[in-house]
Amino acid sequence: MKLTSITGLGVVGASMLESFKNISDSPVETNSPRFNMSGYAAPRLKTVRIGFIGLGNRGIRAVNRIPHIEGVEINAICDLRSDKVDAANKALEKAGQKPDTYRGGMEEWKKVCERKDIDLIYITTPWELHTPMAVYAMNHGKHVCVEVPAATTVDECWQLVETSEKTKKHCMMLENCCYDFFELLTLNMARQGLFGEIIHCEGAYLHDLLDQNFSKSYYADFWRLKENYTRKGNLYPTHGLGPVCQVLNINRGDQMDYLVSMSGNDFMMNEKAKSLAKADPFYNQFVGKSYNGNMNTTTIRTKKGKTIMLQHDVTSPRPYSRIHLVSGTKGTAQKFPLPGKISFGHDEWAGAEDMAKLEKQFTPPIVAKIGEMAKRIGGHGGMDLIMDWRTIDCLRNGLPLDQDVYDAALWSAIWPLSEKSLASRSNSVDVPDFTRGAWRSNTPIDLSLSKGGTTKVI
Amino acid sequence: MKLTSITGLGVVGASMLESFKNISDSPVETNSPRFNMSGYAAPRLKTVRIGFIGLGNRGIRAVNRIPHIEGVEINAICDLRSDKVDAANKALEKAGQKPDTYRGGMEEWKKVCERKDIDLIYITTPWELHTPMAVYAMNHGKHVCVEVPAATTVDECWQLVETSEKTKKHCMMLENCCYDFFELLTLNMARQGLFGEIIHCEGAYLHDLLDQNFSKSYYADFWRLKENYTRKGNLYPTHGLGPVCQVLNINRGDQMDYLVSMSGNDFMMNEKAKSLAKADPFYNQFVGKSYNGNMNTTTIRTKKGKTIMLQHDVTSPRPYSRIHLVSGTKGTAQKFPLPGKISFGHDEWAGAEDMAKLEKQFTPPIVAKIGEMAKRIGGHGGMDLIMDWRTIDCLRNGLPLDQDVYDAALWSAIWPLSEKSLASRSNSVDVPDFTRGAWRSNTPIDLSLSKGGTTKVI
Repeated sequence: MKLTSITGLGVVGASMLESFKNISDSPVETNSPRFNMSGYAAPRLKTVRIGFIGLGNRGIRAVNRIPHIEGVEINAICDLRSDKVDAANKALEKAGQKPDTYRGGMEEWKKVCERKDIDLIYITTPWELHTPMAVYAMNHGKHVCVEVPAATTVDECWQLVETSEKTKKHCMMLENCCYDFFELLTLNMARQGLFGEIIHCEGAYLHDLLDQNFSKSYYADFWRLKENYTRKGNLYPTHGLGPVCQVLNINRGDQMDYLVSMSGNDFMMNEKAKSLAKADPFYNQFVGKSYNGNMNTTTIRTKKGKTIMLQHDVTSPRPYSRIHLVSGTKGTAQKFPLPGKISFGHDEWAGAEDMAKLEKQFTPPIVAKIGEMAKRIGGHGGMDLIMDWRTIDCLRNGLPLDQDVYDAALWSAIWPLSEKSLASRSNSVDVPDFTRGAWRSNTPIDLSLSKGGTTKVI
Repeated sequence: MKLTSITGLGVVGASMLESFKNISDSPVETNSPRFNMSGYAAPRLKTVRIGFIGLGNRGIRAVNRIPHIEGVEINAICDLRSDKVDAANKALEKAGQKPDTYRGGMEEWKKVCERKDIDLIYITTPWELHTPMAVYAMNHGKHVCVEVPAATTVDECWQLVETSEKTKKHCMMLENCCYDFFELLTLNMARQGLFGEIIHCEGAYLHDLLDQNFSKSYYADFWRLKENYTRKGNLYPTHGLGPVCQVLNINRGDQMDYLVSMSGNDFMMNEKAKSLAKADPFYNQFVGKSYNGNMNTTTIRTKKGKTIMLQHDVTSPRPYSRIHLVSGTKGTAQKFPLPGKISFGHDEWAGAEDMAKLEKQFTPPIVAKIGEMAKRIGGHGGMDLIMDWRTIDCLRNGLPLDQDVYDAALWSAIWPLSEKSLASRSNSVDVPDFTRGAWRSNTPIDLSLSKGGTTKVI
């Protein structure tokens, strides 16, 4: 599969350079947006008709989850690989859905976007395809849910923003970690003022994917490994970043100002390639590549003087962590390296009994409503189902989505911006304001279910 | 007490500017050192004769600890405040020591340095006095132990280096955290290769000192609070940094290359001043000051492509943390936010039973020798006594000290260097090589007690 032939964006290296170039060409915030998608409520849909593009790791799981939600109709599924299509089709038939199937051709996905009987395109393909597919779908009148990261260059981020504003179609990035239980709990507590004013947050994606990246079957045609030797920086920033941006009301009351990014060398990936190549000459093609540094640390400052420390390491033998630290003038929360803890002073973290009390007292309405059901159905412990349910429920009730196109663009932009900082000896880089100044008056997201919440989970 | 009148270095703001200026004027590494103090063993001393300068918070504790070590003679103690001198003298008399006392005058400390019957000056005074006192002591033929940070500007760092090289006197910064139990354990394990090649480390000083900083008695004449509104950046970098620099063999096989630093705003200190001033107009003098940002994150890259993430927050209501993360190609260790954990894979941290086994198997020789005794005598749980014992034992056996003047200079320099980065929108700043290239051949420190360890603890 030659990705670049589909996107028409040229080789990855070239698109990287484009992203650098385009930062200075970006619209400045003195231009007001053509249409502000933050808080935008699209006309309500009684039934949400969905087309799925990409039926690999993330896609098949979504296909298995989403029929549990009331009011969805899956009308099309698409993948290059016939076996993936068959597997998804079989699962959907069991769930009473009868989608048309698209397979094989490099342009088949466009047919899904062009159908008249679809409201939402759900994109779970390799990273380089996210923006081209999302833009095409919106331009054909479809709302979009797109896997993380939504974009791989700053230029792509602006393409998403401008297309969503022009078409008035939602472009929601599927940042599922915003719907994990401790993240929802801390957001709810932050909203209720328990941490006081937030001073500093941390997020991360520390997840050892070394074996998966070098697997012949896990990521089709080694697409993720290739990203790791053609690009640099924090390639996967959104899981740690999304939840803390919501706590900090980024794009909605505060905005990122500038960032600095630093990577060390690669100590893991080339060694892995060399080790595999000893037993299997196939792997010689991956020896001596210019791999991304194993550990990246990016620090972001906001207009209101808060900071975010964000890390990325997908190769070192470390226990999984997204850190999820929220530090405020009255208290602190931290999820990793051990189960979520909260403190309201400098002496110690709340013990198990106090934590249970806090969790009970501050259970977010969305968790109270479908948390148990979500845990039963699953998807990263339940958060994926909560995310899908919330999205469908908002579309069915004509409510704004929690994550709009500005979030998709900004959270994804950390990748190319971190790359730009690295290219200049970690000097600071201004973060584009994708809301073009609207962050000052945009209102924070509503997870309180003060509206909506009517959709059933089956 | 007007500190600047003693040091003759001018107002703090001016010395800050000096430090900026002096970075570019610094000796470059193509000049070999006049004398390489790394690994230098001074002539052995059967008895180590000590003079103490500064008998406040840290001083009185040292005075209480050190007589437990064989072969020391405390010949002089000095403080501006007569009550502090009396208290220290009383404690020393009980311990069978008969020091001469110096008090009151602003130049009394110089008399201690000028005595012929002293080998080691132990300096525990406010930060601004550390370098002037250490330099004066070395110039009068004395070894020096000096509290952290050893210097407050890059110029002072070079003063320490040049004076130590010229006089061949040890200048050891009292970085006690290098001698804490988990730090010693991870250093020992790192040396034995258990973490593989180290990729990334983290350290921090997250310690809520808000009440102490605004106390009328805790820090004499609010000296530490004043540092927090006349200076910026990571004002206190060494506790988190020292132990990971030893793990990374910084100054001894690797060297820092450049750093970036970012702070948020102050959300705590001015609010505290305003709140105190409501009840006590005395505090009006501290309202509206330009306080250092509460949270500082500094990231450092080494010549060999490793990274260090270092944080400083002395005001937020967070549980104490120095993080102490060591991440390598084979394993990971992390001490905070919960008790020290080790992992050799990506699945999970070792449980209590496995941790106990690891601690037993890899107990460092220094801990096996005096760990239990140190815990009994105390000082931050024992680490202070281990540090003092090791220092005295090296001096008595004619061995190099674990922390030399290059460590004192480099670890302290992070403060002014972080300040410089902050002043240029967090752009990167080159770190001076205080070893002037000798880091390439300097050998790692020896905590194995393959030599020394003969001094008794009483």
